[in-house]
Amino acid sequence: MDYLNKELISTSLGQRMADRVVTGGRLINVYTGRISQMDVAITAGRIAAIGDVGYCTGPDTERIDAEGFYLAPGLIEPHVHPEVAKVTITAIANAVLPRGNTTIMCSLDQIGVVAGLEGMRWALDEARMTPLKVFHSGPSRLPYTTPASTVGFTFGPEEHAVAQGWEEAVGIWEYMSDSVVDFDPSVYETAGLTLRNRLGLHGHAPAARGPVLSACVAAGMRDDHESYTAAEMAEKMGNGVYCFLRRNTRRDSIDELIRAVTEMALPSHFLSLCTDDLDCLDIHKLGLIDYLVRRVIRAGLDPVTAIQMGSLNAARAYQVDHLVGSITPGRIADIVLLKDLATFEVDTVIADGKVVARAGEMLEPIPTPTYPAMYFDTMRFDQPIRAEDLLVRVDAAAVRAQVMCIHLNLGVGATHRRSEVTLDVKDGVISPDPEQDVLYISVTERYTGRARSSTGFIQGFGLKQGAIATSLSPDDNNVITIGASVEDMVVAINRLVEIGGGQVVVNSGQVVTEIALPLCGIMSTVSVAEMAGLERKLNQAAWDLGTTLSRPFFYLIFFSITAIPDYAITDAGVVERASRVVIDPILKLESQRP
Amino acid sequence: MDYLNKELISTSLGQRMADRVVTGGRLINVYTGRISQMDVAITAGRIAAIGDVGYCTGPDTERIDAEGFYLAPGLIEPHVHPEVAKVTITAIANAVLPRGNTTIMCSLDQIGVVAGLEGMRWALDEARMTPLKVFHSGPSRLPYTTPASTVGFTFGPEEHAVAQGWEEAVGIWEYMSDSVVDFDPSVYETAGLTLRNRLGLHGHAPAARGPVLSACVAAGMRDDHESYTAAEMAEKMGNGVYCFLRRNTRRDSIDELIRAVTEMALPSHFLSLCTDDLDCLDIHKLGLIDYLVRRVIRAGLDPVTAIQMGSLNAARAYQVDHLVGSITPGRIADIVLLKDLATFEVDTVIADGKVVARAGEMLEPIPTPTYPAMYFDTMRFDQPIRAEDLLVRVDAAAVRAQVMCIHLNLGVGATHRRSEVTLDVKDGVISPDPEQDVLYISVTERYTGRARSSTGFIQGFGLKQGAIATSLSPDDNNVITIGASVEDMVVAINRLVEIGGGQVVVNSGQVVTEIALPLCGIMSTVSVAEMAGLERKLNQAAWDLGTTLSRPFFYLIFFSITAIPDYAITDAGVVERASRVVIDPILKLESQRP
Repeated sequence: MDYLNKELISTSLGQRMADRVVTGGRLINVYTGRISQMDVAITAGRIAAIGDVGYCTGPDTERIDAEGFYLAPGLIEPHVHPEVAKVTITAIANAVLPRGNTTIMCSLDQIGVVAGLEGMRWALDEARMTPLKVFHSGPSRLPYTTPASTVGFTFGPEEHAVAQGWEEAVGIWEYMSDSVVDFDPSVYETAGLTLRNRLGLHGHAPAARGPVLSACVAAGMRDDHESYTAAEMAEKMGNGVYCFLRRNTRRDSIDELIRAVTEMALPSHFLSLCTDDLDCLDIHKLGLIDYLVRRVIRAGLDPVTAIQMGSLNAARAYQVDHLVGSITPGRIADIVLLKDLATFEVDTVIADGKVVARAGEMLEPIPTPTYPAMYFDTMRFDQPIRAEDLLVRVDAAAVRAQVMCIHLNLGVGATHRRSEVTLDVKDGVISPDPEQDVLYISVTERYTGRARSSTGFIQGFGLKQGAIATSLSPDDNNVITIGASVEDMVVAINRLVEIGGGQVVVNSGQVVTEIALPLCGIMSTVSVAEMAGLERKLNQAAWDLGTTLSRPFFYLIFFSITAIPDYAITDAGVVERASRVVIDPILKLESQRP
Repeated sequence: MDYLNKELISTSLGQRMADRVVTGGRLINVYTGRISQMDVAITAGRIAAIGDVGYCTGPDTERIDAEGFYLAPGLIEPHVHPEVAKVTITAIANAVLPRGNTTIMCSLDQIGVVAGLEGMRWALDEARMTPLKVFHSGPSRLPYTTPASTVGFTFGPEEHAVAQGWEEAVGIWEYMSDSVVDFDPSVYETAGLTLRNRLGLHGHAPAARGPVLSACVAAGMRDDHESYTAAEMAEKMGNGVYCFLRRNTRRDSIDELIRAVTEMALPSHFLSLCTDDLDCLDIHKLGLIDYLVRRVIRAGLDPVTAIQMGSLNAARAYQVDHLVGSITPGRIADIVLLKDLATFEVDTVIADGKVVARAGEMLEPIPTPTYPAMYFDTMRFDQPIRAEDLLVRVDAAAVRAQVMCIHLNLGVGATHRRSEVTLDVKDGVISPDPEQDVLYISVTERYTGRARSSTGFIQGFGLKQGAIATSLSPDDNNVITIGASVEDMVVAINRLVEIGGGQVVVNSGQVVTEIALPLCGIMSTVSVAEMAGLERKLNQAAWDLGTTLSRPFFYLIFFSITAIPDYAITDAGVVERASRVVIDPILKLESQRP
């Protein structure tokens, strides 16, 4: 889009009549914080004027009656990985637009590891066919993992040089505290390039405080979405960081973080709301930023402040407040008609100046495009996986082994902690021990054909039998499998290869249920509502195997992220975040005395 | 400067000890609005960490004791034409740094019309030799005047393409409402380029409201410094514009504009403070943004809010908040030690991490550089001016003429209004008539050698005799002369040519006093204090000629700005702003009946 538009400016001047006017509404001005009766004139999908717009309203100007409604700016999601919902940008747009979400900031990093720069560009072109505004920050580095795991495409300074020329470009993404601390050469080079290109370094600094936080900010980190406590977030803000309060499917930090405003009385204009990662059950049931706006209102925030957090503040964090985030001239005409302010009840959604949704439904759902060949057949295995590829083998003389497990922690603090258990060794093999809640967790790369696998142990997941697997798995989308049975793990992995990627539950050698994700092995063309239905079944099947986790697959997919404390597993092996090295989960072997 | 600096980041991490620490002060955090005891660690002139910095303080770390002081960020002037003070950037830096002003945003447009892109670059290089941070926005167009007056160098898209590659670049300057309304092709092209380069369109929209304001904002105007009333400014803010409250030597709008916060309770974080144009009398006596911070505190603002307006808010308006505007990591270490918060009494100024001033004095004044040849001998006249060049000639048969005067208005509203008077015509010449307070005002171009002149009439200036002239005259720096005597006007102009440019008072054919401005015909190498002394003398000499204007020369210099309502005069003639055309000041002639 060329920002300067003569038709638009002529309308502002009254030399040309507006395409459309929204009349009779009470406009929420996120700059002044005031609400007042104001009409809105729209031309070329952008706002030409607010207030008394009679002077640019002609006989051919279409009217949108907003009598009795509040007018809020379209909401902005400042940090989300849409691919993690396993549906396409088109499906996301169809689901979130009717809820008042008109802009998302993303990286498309999950498409990136599978289909590279070209694959990302394709998704941005897809987004252009929708009224959802999608801004892009190239991933600070692909793979994000340290040590690097296997991916289909890497992303470094060369790719950024291209992507930062795109119109959607707003910076780099997941600028990780670990990369800063490590002086990662590729990320360092990319960050320099980005600042010279006058774009933002959008951060990822979980639990960063004190020296590490100082280093991140000194290295140009502009914003962060990884605060776990209000005190942590306040420290970040005090160091000049724009902060995003997050509630994802796995963890809800809203009530804790909003205390920075409601209790600590810190200013709200550096704060925004984000989801980061959601499954479709959540999107379908709750929405996106609309839900979080309601949440912070419920937590005690004034509705206008909440709406500012959901719109203008995010636009300012990303330096795109001339394009989105308010109902003021020049901005894209993304306007939400609310029945009620305190409940943020959305009635009608205007995007690009046109009514696209009413009463929670798209007037015309955006049609699914035909996806490019590069998105298909991305699970490359030279031959099927065998149990031998996954088994943990040790000295045949051993009888017992003390092993380190990744321990899933649902409480406060690091999600992936460690625990130690003693397991029997039989014929040189350490097997899963569901009795002790010790399961295998394996990662199998799916890009080179060679299918390098690593296997570790996990506690806290609770499967009593069978196996579950996923080929959607940030940050590299290799196949993560958790199993009480190695045989079922093998079946699960081979099934995912067969269907071109997806998520599957296997028991006693049989596929119980599955979701096919043929696009890049991580996405399906179904709608968010349909995907929510599939997720429900899949979770149920996993529950039937004994786990009591609320969303088993939403825990499964995140074990490969080495930038989340304290442990991860990639195809390179079990990784300790603090040291950034692969560690051996076998701590000690006891051999039988003769 | 490369933003990413390994020494800095290593200091943040505690792997390298800080160069310097500021200890014991009470830090004003402009992000959180809180004040608390915090030390500041500095390396490579930038802030490495705030708070407990013991971990990066070593035996070789230098200590700056701030016990008993508040620490405020260095102040930012978001809109000033430094050349209008008639001194160099070096002199400005020496004068304003001790007052806590560490950053200025400017265009160097006044150097630009005389010495072009190369002349501007030279001044920016000069600025780099000082601890004053100077950001640059290329003039939206040179000349700014409509219709175009004569200048030495024009500035258009081609020049912007170069200047926007400079490290100091932050956008374009004086993006005028008139240019927007006129769809000025050159400015339109430049604005498009600027947005593609991800820089800001820094506006100039005096009295713009309603449709014109909407058009300006729709055309991407990011900020404005031309509000005359709180209501006007509130309307701009409500349309998404960052607003600067201005007090220049000519007009003080602070008390009126601050009502937007103190009475209308609008949020302050879109507001900053600026001076635009000051003479050295003001800079010497009052300071720069430090004075305006004190002013808004006196007007009822909380000191922290006032300091935010004087620092972070301006940095955000210019999208350089990662570099300046707060005491947080990564930012340049520009820190002001205050004795008292409410009075903003500056004790010590740290710039680029070093103490540069104490008790209002530079520790080591920045030495004056040797200026380049292109800055000298810029008054090009093929031959001396003669009275004939200035006289207003009409039909020899006329005896009386009704003429239009530019009327200087010191009250509310347009500064240059119109009035009409009837004057005698003698031998086909309409002469000044000091009795009626009707003087000649002429503009003589000084770039081509041909010395095109135009003459009009002015009321409200009050000279009874003699003439005054200036070759500093935004926006084109041609010679503006006001006179009760044409002969004295001729002497004044020729004297300015002789001394390479300046300001002069002439009476009865003699130069009474003058200021030589040999650099580009607009600047001298003297200090601000010395220039203030010269200004005092010059004003006195003008008062002696009968004017009662507080600062005669500060009114004189602005008559050529066609973008200020309602009338201007350039070498092309008297210009009516509304129509943007040259008008004939002779309205009607009466001829003697035979």
